[in-house]
Amino acid sequence: MRVVVIGATGTIGKAVVQQLAGRHEVVNVGHNSGEFRVDIASAGSIKALFDKLGPVDAVVSTAGSAVFKSFEELTDADYALGLANKLMGQVNLVRLGYRSIRDGGSFTLTSGVLSREPMKGSASISMINAGVEGFVRAAALELPRGIRVNVVSPPWVQETLDALGMKGIQGMPAMNVALAYVDSVEGKKTGTVIEVRAFA
Amino acid sequence: MRVVVIGATGTIGKAVVQQLAGRHEVVNVGHNSGEFRVDIASAGSIKALFDKLGPVDAVVSTAGSAVFKSFEELTDADYALGLANKLMGQVNLVRLGYRSIRDGGSFTLTSGVLSREPMKGSASISMINAGVEGFVRAAALELPRGIRVNVVSPPWVQETLDALGMKGIQGMPAMNVALAYVDSVEGKKTGTVIEVRAFA
Ligand SMILES: NC(=O)c1ccc[n+]([C@@H]2O[C@H](COP(=O)([O-])OP(=O)(O)OC[C@H]3O[C@@H](n4cnc5c(N)ncnc54)[C@H](OP(=O)(O)O)[C@@H]3O)[C@@H](O)[C@H]2O)c1
Ligand SMILES: NC(=O)c1ccc[n+]([C@@H]2O[C@H](COP(=O)([O-])OP(=O)(O)OC[C@H]3O[C@@H](n4cnc5c(N)ncnc54)[C@H](OP(=O)(O)O)[C@@H]3O)[C@@H](O)[C@H]2O)c1
Repeated sequence: MRVVVIGATGTIGKAVVQQLAGRHEVVNVGHNSGEFRVDIASAGSIKALFDKLGPVDAVVSTAGSAVFKSFEELTDADYALGLANKLMGQVNLVRLGYRSIRDGGSFTLTSGVLSREPMKGSASISMINAGVEGFVRAAALELPRGIRVNVVSPPWVQETLDALGMKGIQGMPAMNVALAYVDSVEGKKTGTVIEVRAFA
Repeated sequence: MRVVVIGATGTIGKAVVQQLAGRHEVVNVGHNSGEFRVDIASAGSIKALFDKLGPVDAVVSTAGSAVFKSFEELTDADYALGLANKLMGQVNLVRLGYRSIRDGGSFTLTSGVLSREPMKGSASISMINAGVEGFVRAAALELPRGIRVNVVSPPWVQETLDALGMKGIQGMPAMNVALAYVDSVEGKKTGTVIEVRAFA
């Protein structure tokens, strides 16, 4: 399969690329670097990417920003950033990309554990993650030609916890999280929120 | 309690007002009519409403638009409408209103069954409803002074099905759906998605 990974330079994206490479033709898409680039917050940029890519079997998105900040401090602009980037950015990958997906191909988006297990500071991110999940459940019913769409909800990634110096939360190595994306790409699931559990 | 109902002229809102009246001082807020009015899509309008209202014990929102349309036909503007109105409109009621809520008071927002049980045409609405639910789970952790926030996820309302001439879906009378809002206002729940089931 020809599999496009958007967010390929990120913590999870790098691991997804490693798990898929060797098994598939992987196309890495970066934001600020690489042969293929996209800004998912821009519909024009997404259209240009798919024009350049041509037909593909699967699109994986491990890209998407949203702001983590206390409820009191979150501004209108913080909410707007998450809505335009992680939520509508990923929604628009499906809306603007599905015509480039071969029959029976797939999209795999990313939400996160904060959707169902919030913490202080996650009001915007929890809203965004849950929104991605609601979209995926519904869009799966209408994609043509057997095209599938799932969303992986990663737990805290160990590498991220280490980088942030966060203790006391159960993390999972990115390479293990990446297996959920492989499952979505290679399996038959659609409309599924693949909840990856750190205690699994 | 002094309970403000936003969307008081709607199918669900009217029933909520009926269930609360007699037990509480109910303030009806309309969109296009009434002494108290608000456009939840406008932050300025929400601020002006709370300035005019003064202190309240509970705010119930049964207001909020989002567009039902096939995945193929949903436009950028359709998604933007739901995000600004039903999603951020209700989020902003909490963000801009909580300082007006008395200690231990509450917000009760509205999502809908399409969050978890999508149908063709619900890609935008399912995304929006799920987003409201994700926000509520998280915001509940940070509201000060014992202020609570829940979201009622109504099933199809019988009166709505009748008005739309929709057959073959199980509906629930608005007066029964309204009891979930009373439960949220009078009970102790917070951060809860109150899923009202038509077969309950
Ligand atoms: N890491 C965790 O613990 C964890 C847990 C749960 C959920 N998640 C979610 O998983 C996703 C990926 O997380 P991560 O830790 O791998 O993030 P990350 O290391 O920050 O990587 C983000 C990736 O997305 C790209 N990107 C950023 N903005 C973009 C844009 N506007 N358009 C296109 N690409 C863009 C980045 O490219 P550049 O490097 O070029 O900017 C990078 O490749 C995020 O949505 C995150 O919320 C992460
Ligand atoms: N009815 C159902 O079967 C059902 C099922 C699941 C979920 N829901 C959800 O429940 C909510 C209420 O549904 P409903 O059937 O009662 O709707 P409705 O009969 O259309 O009533 C909507 C109410 O919201 C008000 N409103 C509309 N736009 C507004 C705005 N920008 N600012 C402030 N108020 C505004 C309306 O005021 P005006 O009359 O002045 O415009 C009206 O009072 C909606 O979010 C809907 O998605 C409904």
